[in-house]
Amino acid sequence: MEPEAGSYRSAGVDIDAAEAAKDEIAQRVAATHNVSVLRGVGHFGGFFRAPKSDGEVVLVSSADSVGTKVLVAALAGHHYPIGIDLVHHSVNDILACGARPLFFLDYYATPRLDPDALREIIRGMTDACEEAGCALIGGETAQLPGIYQPDTYDLAGFVVGAVEEARIVDGSRIQAGDVVIGIPSVGLHTNGYSLARSVLGLDGTPERAKAILTEPLDVFAGVALMHVLLIPHRSYLPEIVPLLDLDILKGMAHITGGGIAGNVGRIIPDGLLAEFDLNTWEPHPIFGLIQQRGSITGDEMYKVFNMGLGYVVVVSPPDVDRALDEIEDGRIVGRIINTSDEAKVRFVRNEDGWAAS
Amino acid sequence: MEPEAGSYRSAGVDIDAAEAAKDEIAQRVAATHNVSVLRGVGHFGGFFRAPKSDGEVVLVSSADSVGTKVLVAALAGHHYPIGIDLVHHSVNDILACGARPLFFLDYYATPRLDPDALREIIRGMTDACEEAGCALIGGETAQLPGIYQPDTYDLAGFVVGAVEEARIVDGSRIQAGDVVIGIPSVGLHTNGYSLARSVLGLDGTPERAKAILTEPLDVFAGVALMHVLLIPHRSYLPEIVPLLDLDILKGMAHITGGGIAGNVGRIIPDGLLAEFDLNTWEPHPIFGLIQQRGSITGDEMYKVFNMGLGYVVVVSPPDVDRALDEIEDGRIVGRIINTSDEAKVRFVRNEDGWAAS
Repeated sequence: MEPEAGSYRSAGVDIDAAEAAKDEIAQRVAATHNVSVLRGVGHFGGFFRAPKSDGEVVLVSSADSVGTKVLVAALAGHHYPIGIDLVHHSVNDILACGARPLFFLDYYATPRLDPDALREIIRGMTDACEEAGCALIGGETAQLPGIYQPDTYDLAGFVVGAVEEARIVDGSRIQAGDVVIGIPSVGLHTNGYSLARSVLGLDGTPERAKAILTEPLDVFAGVALMHVLLIPHRSYLPEIVPLLDLDILKGMAHITGGGIAGNVGRIIPDGLLAEFDLNTWEPHPIFGLIQQRGSITGDEMYKVFNMGLGYVVVVSPPDVDRALDEIEDGRIVGRIINTSDEAKVRFVRNEDGWAAS
Repeated sequence: MEPEAGSYRSAGVDIDAAEAAKDEIAQRVAATHNVSVLRGVGHFGGFFRAPKSDGEVVLVSSADSVGTKVLVAALAGHHYPIGIDLVHHSVNDILACGARPLFFLDYYATPRLDPDALREIIRGMTDACEEAGCALIGGETAQLPGIYQPDTYDLAGFVVGAVEEARIVDGSRIQAGDVVIGIPSVGLHTNGYSLARSVLGLDGTPERAKAILTEPLDVFAGVALMHVLLIPHRSYLPEIVPLLDLDILKGMAHITGGGIAGNVGRIIPDGLLAEFDLNTWEPHPIFGLIQQRGSITGDEMYKVFNMGLGYVVVVSPPDVDRALDEIEDGRIVGRIINTSDEAKVRFVRNEDGWAAS
């Protein structure tokens, strides 16, 4: 079957094939687990009870990469943002479980080492680690001719954080009437770059791609596409840590691959639905540009991209004001309602905004 | 400057370029460290004090990949060994610090997902994790068109283990007169595949490579090269754990990239030298085949490959018998002597073997 034009699959990413292998993988993986593994809680990270801490401290870990954003960085010759991306993405993931980062390791692989690019990436990673109070304690740099395309690289990261077992945030306490607060993204972050590159014409010759990347665009007030595409993934640690201290967060989602529905859906208990009002926030213009250039449906856009929300928290109505006090650019974007449907997330457009609902 | 024929660089791996970036990286990385990081000990892993364990438990972590061995697996269509390789390599690394594995995460990236290959890799990883008592608690599967060559993939792993701070094994207690025990490797393990593939003619067309891989070879008693090249990396956990319990290990080295000298050198204190007697062990015939086909010098071979020793431990003379009781195929391969040289490792050939020295 031919993939439909403009879909993520036609850009070379086969999400269904990945899903197909998941069931068997889940079974095999479960067989390796022991009493130290907390199952079924950590959708944004893996949970393991720290040894000799009487089960009080749980280590939360996550592995991730920056994806094909590195190809934009390679074309632009700016690698510093990629290092930041990797750390912020990883830290946000475990943060969504209530964990604060402890340490980080990276894996950098390339067909032929470019020491300047590596230095820039390390600068980005170490700046982001310092800011997050996260120690970079290891990593591997591999030169692997034959696996990678010329002039490319891949960068993966591995973060370990900690949370007291009683303070794990997993969405299980969410109930009808709770309020969904969204925090804006600053662009694509690190997801959807395969589709974005395809529809923006960046997957052709390097010459043509560079011309497209460096052209100032009216939609960005004269800023070149390159700079918009390389804005580093935002870290939500500064906003969320004070809220962890207040212990008012019932659920959190880091909006990455799978978009708002894919990620928020992971924390909503059965019988409940998170209803988002699309009138409550304005996505960055990069999303409109991609949608228009690629003639992509709204459904597909919301499945692939963060569409303007990088992080979502769920709180009880009495805690909304305290939460918004800490999140300068946070806003109410939705609410939790009862449902008999299987869908965990729904998008609506309330003409009068949330105040009226 | 043209790289010399038959060197690792001419096979596409530039070790000097990697070294050049190391100094700045080390400085930047050190800036991210805090009091929880134990510096200067973990040559085979990163050390971080577990939170709320009064500093007693230290988490030891390592990031690594299988390297271009995956290209041999892809040609052969056998991916199960690669999953084992990744886990065994990683577990051996932290084991060399005295740590036992707790949990593992993987990063699998490919241009287009092959669910069958992924299943085989997961089977290998989960079998190895179960055997090691190590929980596979997370991972990332990324489809990254444009970064990877067609029909390839990369597989990286992150392991976290634990050791009591007082039981960290780092070589610092090694002294003159101590005995070096070697444990055989079962082949190349996961290092030197770029050079091996080049000299064995596996980097040409897939058709030619497959013909070379499937031809039975006399030197392997009729076994095809493919099977020898895909023997999984040996885990030394079964032999070493009983010796950790006995607390008689003064130093350990996992022999990976950099060979015996590069890895044993990391644990030998200043003023001391590990002298290896090459007459005390017989490398697997794969090494002779590679050396002969590539006209590679002995120096280069020992710099790139494990040359028959996959793991090395250093003990005091009175503990040698107890150590050898646990290591069925271990043998005395060297001794620690005083030196005024900078070199930490020296190779000799004692005509009468070690008994006479």
